[in-house]
Amino acid sequence: MTAATLITLTTDFGEGSRYVAAMKGVILSINPAARIIDLSHSVPAQCILRGAIALAETAPYFPAETIHVAVVDPGVGTARRIVYARIGTQQFIAPDNGLLARLAANATPSKIICLDRPEIWLPRLSNTFHGRDIMAPVAARLSLGLSPDELGSPLDSLVPLAWPEAEKVANRISGEVVEVDSFGNLITNITREMLAGAPTDESVTITCDEHATQGIFKNYSEQPAMTLIALVGSGGSLELAIVEENASAMLGVRAGAPVVITW
Amino acid sequence: MTAATLITLTTDFGEGSRYVAAMKGVILSINPAARIIDLSHSVPAQCILRGAIALAETAPYFPAETIHVAVVDPGVGTARRIVYARIGTQQFIAPDNGLLARLAANATPSKIICLDRPEIWLPRLSNTFHGRDIMAPVAARLSLGLSPDELGSPLDSLVPLAWPEAEKVANRISGEVVEVDSFGNLITNITREMLAGAPTDESVTITCDEHATQGIFKNYSEQPAMTLIALVGSGGSLELAIVEENASAMLGVRAGAPVVITW
Amino acid sequence: MTAATLITLTTDFGEGSRYVAAMKGVILSINPAARIIDLSHSVPAQCILRGAIALAETAPYFPAETIHVAVVDPGVGTARRIVYARIGTQQFIAPDNGLLARLAANATPSKIICLDRPEIWLPRLSNTFHGRDIMAPVAARLSLGLSPDELGSPLDSLVPLAWPEAEKVANRISGEVVEVDSFGNLITNITREMLAGAPTDESVTITCDEHATQGIFKNYSEQPAMTLIALVGSGGSLELAIVEENASAMLGVRAGAPVVITW
Repeated sequence: MTAATLITLTTDFGEGSRYVAAMKGVILSINPAARIIDLSHSVPAQCILRGAIALAETAPYFPAETIHVAVVDPGVGTARRIVYARIGTQQFIAPDNGLLARLAANATPSKIICLDRPEIWLPRLSNTFHGRDIMAPVAARLSLGLSPDELGSPLDSLVPLAWPEAEKVANRISGEVVEVDSFGNLITNITREMLAGAPTDESVTITCDEHATQGIFKNYSEQPAMTLIALVGSGGSLELAIVEENASAMLGVRAGAPVVITW
Repeated sequence: MTAATLITLTTDFGEGSRYVAAMKGVILSINPAARIIDLSHSVPAQCILRGAIALAETAPYFPAETIHVAVVDPGVGTARRIVYARIGTQQFIAPDNGLLARLAANATPSKIICLDRPEIWLPRLSNTFHGRDIMAPVAARLSLGLSPDELGSPLDSLVPLAWPEAEKVANRISGEVVEVDSFGNLITNITREMLAGAPTDESVTITCDEHATQGIFKNYSEQPAMTLIALVGSGGSLELAIVEENASAMLGVRAGAPVVITW
Repeated sequence: MTAATLITLTTDFGEGSRYVAAMKGVILSINPAARIIDLSHSVPAQCILRGAIALAETAPYFPAETIHVAVVDPGVGTARRIVYARIGTQQFIAPDNGLLARLAANATPSKIICLDRPEIWLPRLSNTFHGRDIMAPVAARLSLGLSPDELGSPLDSLVPLAWPEAEKVANRISGEVVEVDSFGNLITNITREMLAGAPTDESVTITCDEHATQGIFKNYSEQPAMTLIALVGSGGSLELAIVEENASAMLGVRAGAPVVITW
């Protein structure tokens, strides 16, 4: 078994959606040996930004040649393109709507193909479910060894994503919460690299909406329960958490909330 | 690997239920090579109708000879039968309570067997979890090559399901919402075939509860955000959606709501 | 394919968490042939007790030699140990915080190893996600045939779990609800063995908070809809349910509620 038979699925269909199972059925009907892993189906409905984060943060942990299929597709049925992209050593199939832009920001795609060959799709095409009718069969054929060049016409670039870049000016970094994880931790767009030069002791203040905390810690357990704490999370970005509690729920903070670091 | 080693699971146990994992453990203990795919575990508790829809809409996308195990079983422990049915080219194991009836409405089962041979079940039988104790081991043995005829005694027919048929009279179709998907789209029992002869322009009016819209569109994107829209969804049934929003939540509409089309 | 390539995952990350997918990517990058089954990711956040129940109730259904990885890890980044344990014929990797204690209460571990060899972990270790950085790579190497003795240093015992034992005194058993399943059924710490000698007819009274019912039944269907009923569930413990309804929601009862049986 080669890693090329490994296909991951990322969608906004919700866990337990029968639409996900239909995609798996299509893939397995074309390549019964394909191995399918769910990356996540909990991307908020039609939230391209959150889908882009999930892909960029998770795909790098998979083996080279893995085929990642991502379906967050508010423009389904319009003229938006569906693309294949090779980024680093991995492969992606997604609508060209910014979903692959966080990955492409880390490594320029070495190949981009517009999926424009209907003869390798499902014969009966719906208007509203191209994940099942186009992306799943294309991924399955790719996993069987079809060359990416056979999927369609080459493209020069991907549609970009409106990503909220954090800004660093003197002793101040301004960013925002970009994701709330299942523990209620508030993950920001402020990276470990941006924090270089900032102190980690109590001389640094981190604010999020009207809430504030001092210091950047290493572990949740360095402070007592119920304390608001800042640390660099497992993805390498600054996150805010309440020890042993759900920060998002307790503070009423959601994605988009401003985060400011000063020292 | 033959397709007969592919087993899907559909239950009302909820995503993340340890009961689902117990079924998988039982299957893999009997056939370590079995490949298990979750069809859905989000069928509303004890809702046979929704389980029947999930199976009928999704199973056809799977390879021939796939074994689909479905456990929505409010009558567990009573005299209700558990059955094997071959429908089209696929195989099903489920309580005989209507769960397979939507599939059987599309294609008459070519074989129905009552699972009445305890010697191929788990040796210690619970009263309340026949999915684990009967259906999982039977599916595993079937995947190992046991003949369906060895599972039990032949039956002539399956228990029917009280399905709300839509009605068409002159220029009017009366149906209802039968499923709300994870996007909040309202999926009805009105099929593409019933719509033959109806116009798709603004001369057609679709009402759902006290809400109304004109025209039957192809894509969500043909109308502005926040607009109530009707279209034929990816399963071939009329659905109502609010563009870029959750129609069920915004309108307070659930399964069972009446839908009327007039022109 | 041997059963040793089978790895299950149990976490409190939530269904659809991209953190689960990262663990799967790490495993498959090291052993592309590993087969990964989700046991559950719906353990309540940082609830070691519920994680311990899920493992103890479900792992026994899996084949011998299965590797079960469990991550409910409120002490991540502290001095708490991460361990390998062989219990019965199965293998476990988890933080040593009580998560394996229900299993160990049923069968004394035949081997316990402290994972203290960083050279077999991911090279870049985060402070907050040892499931991905330590437990996943160790499980993958184990599945490739690495001997448990190579994982680290031997230990004598596991950290215990504060388990609420039910008590039986004369004609009275006092216990509590330890788990609410997805149907809202209230699962207690009162086992079938403790019930030996108690009657099952209406002379036995079961109370839970201020609610009461008479008799211990075999199936949900032995009483009319909406009736509070007691029975021995599929895991061998007494449970309280409301026929065709969600007992937890209707009665407002959660884990920890006292349950008393008298006769």
